[in-house]
Amino acid sequence: MADPRFFARAGPFTLEELAEISGAQVAKDAGRERPITDVSPLSEAGPDDLSFLDNRRYAAELGKSKAGACVLHPSLRSRAPEHMALLVTEDPYRAYARIARAFYPEPVPEAGVHNSAVVAQSAELAGDVSVGPNAVVGEGAVLAAGTRVEAGAVIGPKVEIGEGSVVGANCVLSHCLIGKGVRLHPGVCIGNRGFGFAMGAKGHLDVPQLGRVIVEDGVEIGANSTVDRGAGPDTVIGAGSKIDNLVQIGHNVRLGRGCVLVAQSGIAGSARLEDFVVLAGQSGVAGHLHLGAGAQVGAQSGVMRNLEPGEKVAGSPAIPVKKFFRLVSLLQRMVDKKGNGDE
Amino acid sequence: MADPRFFARAGPFTLEELAEISGAQVAKDAGRERPITDVSPLSEAGPDDLSFLDNRRYAAELGKSKAGACVLHPSLRSRAPEHMALLVTEDPYRAYARIARAFYPEPVPEAGVHNSAVVAQSAELAGDVSVGPNAVVGEGAVLAAGTRVEAGAVIGPKVEIGEGSVVGANCVLSHCLIGKGVRLHPGVCIGNRGFGFAMGAKGHLDVPQLGRVIVEDGVEIGANSTVDRGAGPDTVIGAGSKIDNLVQIGHNVRLGRGCVLVAQSGIAGSARLEDFVVLAGQSGVAGHLHLGAGAQVGAQSGVMRNLEPGEKVAGSPAIPVKKFFRLVSLLQRMVDKKGNGDE
Amino acid sequence: MADPRFFARAGPFTLEELAEISGAQVAKDAGRERPITDVSPLSEAGPDDLSFLDNRRYAAELGKSKAGACVLHPSLRSRAPEHMALLVTEDPYRAYARIARAFYPEPVPEAGVHNSAVVAQSAELAGDVSVGPNAVVGEGAVLAAGTRVEAGAVIGPKVEIGEGSVVGANCVLSHCLIGKGVRLHPGVCIGNRGFGFAMGAKGHLDVPQLGRVIVEDGVEIGANSTVDRGAGPDTVIGAGSKIDNLVQIGHNVRLGRGCVLVAQSGIAGSARLEDFVVLAGQSGVAGHLHLGAGAQVGAQSGVMRNLEPGEKVAGSPAIPVKKFFRLVSLLQRMVDKKGNGDE
Repeated sequence: MADPRFFARAGPFTLEELAEISGAQVAKDAGRERPITDVSPLSEAGPDDLSFLDNRRYAAELGKSKAGACVLHPSLRSRAPEHMALLVTEDPYRAYARIARAFYPEPVPEAGVHNSAVVAQSAELAGDVSVGPNAVVGEGAVLAAGTRVEAGAVIGPKVEIGEGSVVGANCVLSHCLIGKGVRLHPGVCIGNRGFGFAMGAKGHLDVPQLGRVIVEDGVEIGANSTVDRGAGPDTVIGAGSKIDNLVQIGHNVRLGRGCVLVAQSGIAGSARLEDFVVLAGQSGVAGHLHLGAGAQVGAQSGVMRNLEPGEKVAGSPAIPVKKFFRLVSLLQRMVDKKGNGDE
Repeated sequence: MADPRFFARAGPFTLEELAEISGAQVAKDAGRERPITDVSPLSEAGPDDLSFLDNRRYAAELGKSKAGACVLHPSLRSRAPEHMALLVTEDPYRAYARIARAFYPEPVPEAGVHNSAVVAQSAELAGDVSVGPNAVVGEGAVLAAGTRVEAGAVIGPKVEIGEGSVVGANCVLSHCLIGKGVRLHPGVCIGNRGFGFAMGAKGHLDVPQLGRVIVEDGVEIGANSTVDRGAGPDTVIGAGSKIDNLVQIGHNVRLGRGCVLVAQSGIAGSARLEDFVVLAGQSGVAGHLHLGAGAQVGAQSGVMRNLEPGEKVAGSPAIPVKKFFRLVSLLQRMVDKKGNGDE
Repeated sequence: MADPRFFARAGPFTLEELAEISGAQVAKDAGRERPITDVSPLSEAGPDDLSFLDNRRYAAELGKSKAGACVLHPSLRSRAPEHMALLVTEDPYRAYARIARAFYPEPVPEAGVHNSAVVAQSAELAGDVSVGPNAVVGEGAVLAAGTRVEAGAVIGPKVEIGEGSVVGANCVLSHCLIGKGVRLHPGVCIGNRGFGFAMGAKGHLDVPQLGRVIVEDGVEIGANSTVDRGAGPDTVIGAGSKIDNLVQIGHNVRLGRGCVLVAQSGIAGSARLEDFVVLAGQSGVAGHLHLGAGAQVGAQSGVMRNLEPGEKVAGSPAIPVKKFFRLVSLLQRMVDKKGNGDE
């Protein structure tokens, strides 16, 4: 299904191989050796394709699907048509992710430094690094094994990139240490001078920003997002955090592990987010706040106080999400009532 | 008026020529042969300049203006001073646009590939393509006649760019097919991996994003905006849509024709906007929603439900715009009343 | 304290030298000749370090600190431990900024044009300009003494950059005149075509954008921010203004001196901000408005009317900040009360 111009497909895999890859169980004895050639949505899949069903709402599609195999939750097993081979698991989306990654592995560019790239003599590059056309690697930068620096990216002096990390095209990195398996999408800017200055009617006076950015292992940062370096302490992006496009992270911010920041959200200076905090799209967190582990912030919401672990908030300023929706319906009723008199 | 360092002016044109260019009518017999040398605002125009009056509020400026000619609506004809030649039309701004484009045509760079650009041997370039300094064109990319790739832009493998399209400086394109007459401003990133992963306490697991981005003919995308490729289906930007700076478009989003997305707006994954939907600045649309043709969303508003064709909404969450302003004035009265007691 | 890989330290300085640098007074006779080797926060400083205390809330840290010297307000002098040398001043943060800048002066790259840069023959470069790898300088561009163009930046034809300004990596500049001592962080796009077109059901028709961007002296613009050129008049960024990351500035906007625009804020076309206006993060200003000198706009707020000088507003649409917080607490009480009945 995927356009072969852009995506190279591996496989085929037998159902048994896919069970092993995904950790799911083959549900029927028949068909273990059945070759599967691709992944595809239920509505478009054919007899050689594997689909998945993660959301109970789409269970109706299951019965109509021509998919040769499907990954699903045990409780939905009975809804599958007779012809379909099944892989069952408590977490179908995760199992599907593993299978799709097997069919469409991340392409690995040839190792080597393109002859148009500008790499400082003092930079240290492991043997199998790839540096793309017109990329720039500064003095004393360190690129570990398997790192990939795409076209036009600029790696500042002394920056370190961990094993297997990818620096997207036209990214700009300075004053930072990047972990292993990190993925920076195009246009990301990391290590910029934070927004720190002494304000004054005579003019604003810059305060040197003397910290770094530490990006821990497995982090993903979306296109054109920006992460400022610390003012003195470091800015830290915790391991496995997922950051979407056009996100802003101010100086001294500390994210724990596995945080999820959706597109266009922003975090002001010195805020601290514990593990697995989620910020929905276009939301913001004011400076110096503390958000407990697993806190969740709704879209376009603005957090102006500390949050307890697991607390869910919405609104600007943000309040507990249940209160927020109660408020919304309360206002809705007020305006409807008022409307009766007004118009 | 325009700084000649940055803008090369064509002309002069006679009033009659400008009538033909713009589709407006010369209102007085006299002056058809009058040469016009430039366009200029009413307040600054001289006897050789043409101005336009689109907004009735500025009609007072008309009488004081020294402009030699003016494009305006027939209903305002009587307000013009005696000395002024007139071009009348039902749509003065559109007529003015055509005239200004005649005076200031888009500069066309010399065709050719700059010797610092890196163009893969397997890329297909039409004869009159322009590729700027340090631009990169990947394996098997296709650049149709008259396309312009500006300095530092990175065109990924197999990407196709249609006739006459412009890829701005330092743009990054991958996994996409770009139509004819498309204009991408600097720093645009298209085709990035969408924000798709299976969340989990053990860590988030990436789901391969196997779709593309289809940018239809005549689309404009502003500086540093980002468009993710589809997860399986494609992300589609409908013909003639206008997208401002710093806009985010998630995976699988489908825009119809002529949509207008103002700066810093964002659309979450799988939302579908029909033709001529307008999103004002900093507004957002949640995932999987459907916005009917011509729907309009106010600035900073957040759409959390489907919208009917032509529906106008504002607020976060967004409600019909009339209700929104009624709510705003209701709250205003409440707080004013409360204030009397409070302070 | 600062990582020596990324920050080169000057000094040591005697307390007397630091008094002169900062304009603060040595508070005790003893220790004028004491050498100070670094700056550091109160909690981490040792006997050779200088700290500062700007916020009265942190006065408790003063007594416990091992810092050899501290910059503080005269009123806090008595709270300092005996061992600590003191520099007193009415504006400790500003004095600290000067001292930190002395210890960590901005690094000055070697002058010269990197051999991979592409500089047009007609460009005028002062003798001590630095142009980084793969940067592009267009026809007739003018780079004054001491300017620095970082890697991958693209300077369009005829653009002028004033003395000592820095154009960050992968910035894209066109149709603009940049003053002295300006600092553009990576990925900034200036001079893009503004979002100007005649809308219509037959398709939107571009209106030529014939103005420029004027960036006055001492302006700072954060990573990936965008500034559109004027439609006819110029877009102007007043001297000393501080603009954070991912900020959008529309065509014809005029900022006075010393404005502060925090990350992800945006200003629609033709708005005018007088001197020292502050926009907090993710706030927005609608088109054609006038904000008086010193007006302040809260985070995520949306300004939809003119503001008086010094007026402070919050909310969307924005109202006076006192009313906004009164409204917030009023709604809070309503929802709490309602909640008693509901749950």
